[in-house]
Amino acid sequence: MSFNTFGKLYRFTTWGESHGPAIGCVIDGCPPNIKINEKDIQKDLDKRKPGQSKFTTQRKEMDKVQILSGIFEGKTTGTPISMIIYNKDMRSRDYETIKNKFRPGHADYTYFKKYGIRDYRGGGRQSARETASRVAAGAIAKTHLGLLGCDLSKWNNRQIRKNPFFCPDKSSVKLWEKYLLSVRKSGSSCGAIIELRASGVPIGLGAPIYSKLDADIASALMSINAVKGVNIGSGMNSAFLSGVQNSDEIIKKGKKTIFKSNNAGGILGGISSGQDIIASFAVKPTSSILQSRKTIDKFGKNTKISVKGRHDPCVGIRAVPIGEAMLSCVLLDHYLMNKAQCGN
Amino acid sequence: MSFNTFGKLYRFTTWGESHGPAIGCVIDGCPPNIKINEKDIQKDLDKRKPGQSKFTTQRKEMDKVQILSGIFEGKTTGTPISMIIYNKDMRSRDYETIKNKFRPGHADYTYFKKYGIRDYRGGGRQSARETASRVAAGAIAKTHLGLLGCDLSKWNNRQIRKNPFFCPDKSSVKLWEKYLLSVRKSGSSCGAIIELRASGVPIGLGAPIYSKLDADIASALMSINAVKGVNIGSGMNSAFLSGVQNSDEIIKKGKKTIFKSNNAGGILGGISSGQDIIASFAVKPTSSILQSRKTIDKFGKNTKISVKGRHDPCVGIRAVPIGEAMLSCVLLDHYLMNKAQCGN
Amino acid sequence: MSFNTFGKLYRFTTWGESHGPAIGCVIDGCPPNIKINEKDIQKDLDKRKPGQSKFTTQRKEMDKVQILSGIFEGKTTGTPISMIIYNKDMRSRDYETIKNKFRPGHADYTYFKKYGIRDYRGGGRQSARETASRVAAGAIAKTHLGLLGCDLSKWNNRQIRKNPFFCPDKSSVKLWEKYLLSVRKSGSSCGAIIELRASGVPIGLGAPIYSKLDADIASALMSINAVKGVNIGSGMNSAFLSGVQNSDEIIKKGKKTIFKSNNAGGILGGISSGQDIIASFAVKPTSSILQSRKTIDKFGKNTKISVKGRHDPCVGIRAVPIGEAMLSCVLLDHYLMNKAQCGN
Amino acid sequence: MSFNTFGKLYRFTTWGESHGPAIGCVIDGCPPNIKINEKDIQKDLDKRKPGQSKFTTQRKEMDKVQILSGIFEGKTTGTPISMIIYNKDMRSRDYETIKNKFRPGHADYTYFKKYGIRDYRGGGRQSARETASRVAAGAIAKTHLGLLGCDLSKWNNRQIRKNPFFCPDKSSVKLWEKYLLSVRKSGSSCGAIIELRASGVPIGLGAPIYSKLDADIASALMSINAVKGVNIGSGMNSAFLSGVQNSDEIIKKGKKTIFKSNNAGGILGGISSGQDIIASFAVKPTSSILQSRKTIDKFGKNTKISVKGRHDPCVGIRAVPIGEAMLSCVLLDHYLMNKAQCGN
Repeated sequence: MSFNTFGKLYRFTTWGESHGPAIGCVIDGCPPNIKINEKDIQKDLDKRKPGQSKFTTQRKEMDKVQILSGIFEGKTTGTPISMIIYNKDMRSRDYETIKNKFRPGHADYTYFKKYGIRDYRGGGRQSARETASRVAAGAIAKTHLGLLGCDLSKWNNRQIRKNPFFCPDKSSVKLWEKYLLSVRKSGSSCGAIIELRASGVPIGLGAPIYSKLDADIASALMSINAVKGVNIGSGMNSAFLSGVQNSDEIIKKGKKTIFKSNNAGGILGGISSGQDIIASFAVKPTSSILQSRKTIDKFGKNTKISVKGRHDPCVGIRAVPIGEAMLSCVLLDHYLMNKAQCGN
Repeated sequence: MSFNTFGKLYRFTTWGESHGPAIGCVIDGCPPNIKINEKDIQKDLDKRKPGQSKFTTQRKEMDKVQILSGIFEGKTTGTPISMIIYNKDMRSRDYETIKNKFRPGHADYTYFKKYGIRDYRGGGRQSARETASRVAAGAIAKTHLGLLGCDLSKWNNRQIRKNPFFCPDKSSVKLWEKYLLSVRKSGSSCGAIIELRASGVPIGLGAPIYSKLDADIASALMSINAVKGVNIGSGMNSAFLSGVQNSDEIIKKGKKTIFKSNNAGGILGGISSGQDIIASFAVKPTSSILQSRKTIDKFGKNTKISVKGRHDPCVGIRAVPIGEAMLSCVLLDHYLMNKAQCGN
Repeated sequence: MSFNTFGKLYRFTTWGESHGPAIGCVIDGCPPNIKINEKDIQKDLDKRKPGQSKFTTQRKEMDKVQILSGIFEGKTTGTPISMIIYNKDMRSRDYETIKNKFRPGHADYTYFKKYGIRDYRGGGRQSARETASRVAAGAIAKTHLGLLGCDLSKWNNRQIRKNPFFCPDKSSVKLWEKYLLSVRKSGSSCGAIIELRASGVPIGLGAPIYSKLDADIASALMSINAVKGVNIGSGMNSAFLSGVQNSDEIIKKGKKTIFKSNNAGGILGGISSGQDIIASFAVKPTSSILQSRKTIDKFGKNTKISVKGRHDPCVGIRAVPIGEAMLSCVLLDHYLMNKAQCGN
Repeated sequence: MSFNTFGKLYRFTTWGESHGPAIGCVIDGCPPNIKINEKDIQKDLDKRKPGQSKFTTQRKEMDKVQILSGIFEGKTTGTPISMIIYNKDMRSRDYETIKNKFRPGHADYTYFKKYGIRDYRGGGRQSARETASRVAAGAIAKTHLGLLGCDLSKWNNRQIRKNPFFCPDKSSVKLWEKYLLSVRKSGSSCGAIIELRASGVPIGLGAPIYSKLDADIASALMSINAVKGVNIGSGMNSAFLSGVQNSDEIIKKGKKTIFKSNNAGGILGGISSGQDIIASFAVKPTSSILQSRKTIDKFGKNTKISVKGRHDPCVGIRAVPIGEAMLSCVLLDHYLMNKAQCGN
């Protein structure tokens, strides 16, 4: 059993290898009559695409998306939306030297052991290149969420889109830049923690018990390459709060319901409460690094590995639009689920 | 759309309210001809059941499980296994005073807003009582995993089962005891972090990309009541490691493959690597507390709430067998999925 | 992989063996705040229950349904509805003589070959007793469909509920009675064709392409014990019509859309057209017959079999309420699916 | 909720409109290391492609398939297989005259009513052009089934592939030819009944109760454009057999298990018995006909319609490879499901 499909009602299936002819996705279940602008999708893809600054991989891909079905005269028809992105800047020869070796901490070991066959060129299907498809699916979800008043980026002050790190604090940008340059220079890599917020999410999204909104967000974020931890609201820290501190008191001011804090991250019992949804996730440092590490090869022999290719020193940067995309898809999916069972 | 079913091939559906006549679950997809001993299931349920020490709720439930189908002459037949647990010790009147009020940080607010109807008695379906069903489903999964050499409790040194906190460190038990008594006395509650380990998990479990082993574990653990964060291996901490530190080097010693560290928590690219699976999760402090908190009622009016019922001061204790059960179910599910696509 | 769950949004899972302690089902995804009357469910179960006339099996079962969860103060809460029916009149000794023999045309052969274990008592899980659970699930679906104006029984003139065969033609009842008595006397059995109609089904139900309304009806009806063929509208006969004859012309009369015929059975392109849904299905003759037939036993030896138990000479009679139940569940499921994607 | 995905473990998702730039499918869950020959897929597509004889539509499409992912060095890798077929011979202007009218008996009425938007060019997504994707998915399933000894075409004597009607009886070919020419000349169309047989299917395939092998075959065949009825074995006729006639007696001859008849069509209790699987289905006459028919337009006004485009006078001819493809996919899917739960 294989799972390249995400979602329940708003579902997308991704396909494609890093160095194959193309990658793409098929969205099924999108409501009809939604105006789709190919430029909006492209704008989100541009945030993720490689080679945009010296802090990400130098592979040059235009990541130009093409819609092949499901749109008629600029609107969704309710049928599957197929999108394709052709791969352009592959240098498969970069991978010849590690073709039989496993990168410690990398999925090439487990994929080979599971499937007994390895597309070593650029990591094949394990490559984070697959995430471009998610961003495309997320862009369409965001369009629809926007119509519902739900906004993933309200929290983002203007700073966020103005620096290559999506950092909301201007004063930190210089420090991050310096740090990342040193990481790259040392032939190593580093991890990151990313926080996502969504405003305007209606109360009532979430399908208890095994598709709780937070369970689905956790699964969605954990499915992103290199992610090792997910928090909702206070997350792991909630273990250190007392019950009194942790309870987000509720008061009514006129017609408004106000929560005095948001330790819950906008989710109670797996259902959205109307507060901002807050989710954060940690990505581990890139496992393709220049420094030499001990490993074994396909034939079970001891060897050493040093990876030269063009890799992100910190995948956390490009993980921002991917996280946004996954959260958008989860929210739209749950919006539709809630509408089916509890909608008017 | 509602999701009271967990799993893909080894699937279970739970039902029942805290103060209804009974709770239960139906397991579908269990392989046939597995010897099932009702006593083994009961043993796991006993670890979770309430009223066992002064550190958990004082509700007295025997949690006696009864198997209604799917077993013939002591063996599974491959058809659905229905299990039922009757509720005995309900005191619904305890809930009369909060029947129209929402507990801050509790799901009674979101359930009411979603469904427009509230079974206030003991939290209804939001109650952690539902988790007894998961433990029963997990116990059967563990039986089968045991036959495969996969053991969730190998790591557990003898200490773990010997104290009410499932604490592996004998010297901490006294401290924890003292701490918990003070929490209860103050009319508040506290959270906890629980770590799970599974040994002997075969290489190759995990269904990339949207049902990665870690994504499914994250979803499974996040679906447990009060859980707010999930880590795999180094988890959120991996953001603070360098690429060199984080890469788990591999060496071959004779026929054995040895990893020099386990930051990955036994999972690479969403697929098990043969190392121990390590997952941890945080539970927030119980939201039903004695101390008075501001809230609103069903009619949108400001009020105060102080919850008297019989509640766990720390749900983290009883969360241990529940986490074990969920991890067992995920592992068996992925074992069957892998067998279908890549098995011999 | 095992499938004891039916439906996508309105889902039910059935469990239980013919001679186990009980059978039952769990409904997940029912909309909240629907008034449920246990008596209405019982009324439908009574239509299916055995031992009501000399034309069906003489096993006496009250088929008294008990609701264990999901209902609060007479209304659905949106959480799982668990229903249980205890088995009372089992005579397992009746099956001792055929315990190791396979009934030709019966599923006991394939179940044994698939699972390697056999619950021979009353057919175990293969028994049509499982269908009582479907009828219970269907009764709740019908309650909700009724609120939507959709009626499965409008077509049924008063005759239908007045004779043991659900026959709309009074003059045929005597003939059928005579025929069935002769079948039983000969120690054989007979099959039947059942036609179902639903009026008031809204336009637009159906999820193209692989969950078309007719595809789901076909699957639902074919899943009933002994069913071998399914027709929608003109069904197999449509192969004998010309394109001109087959096209159901459309005219507008005032505000009304009128179709001049209904060869389509109310479904075009897998989507309901607003016409009556017409589906028919054939059940084969019961395979448990008194007359001696050649077969083999569990050990692969040639033998003969003559089945004495209490069996229906024609399962077609009791198949009527089961077909109704399955069609009701499919219609409600698609109503919810359509609401999620295309509803206002 | 929308369903453009078929299957449970061997799953494919199709996308694309008749007159869009391309159509295609993504297969998920294919076992790894299966040798795939693009020519074999093309061969099956050639059987279905339009414009091959005067008895099918004159639209000229090469239906050249291109594999975009999931194959490495000629073998499946276990990751999604994306296939694309570009549309070449579209004449959208043919549809200008019926752009606002509904063809009686055609899905353009229901699609418009459901989605509120219409891609009128060539029927858009309702077009049977979608079935090319199924044939591609079926071709890969057949490759794998072949390795298992299961053969969909064993029954087919040499005649079948030698005439444009896939007719096993040489003497009928002339008659059919004459009949079809007269149908076309009259500006009408006709239906057909197609029978499928698969030999070598292992015992034990089928997932009771709601994914029985016959229920899934019924759903798969009913999902094909224009299909209105499905029979398994004796099908609707089994209603006219006595229990004695219908029971397929079993005898053992040496090591061989022999069934004396095959009314069951190789399926008992939803599980394959080892006999040939026999399934037949009826397609209605094409609804796009030249003769004038009464209908209404998008705005609810009475009008007449006469469809000129290039349509098949009998879609039954091209339905043969499509039925084969669907049956292949169902069989492989159930093979994998059975392996997961009951395999060694």
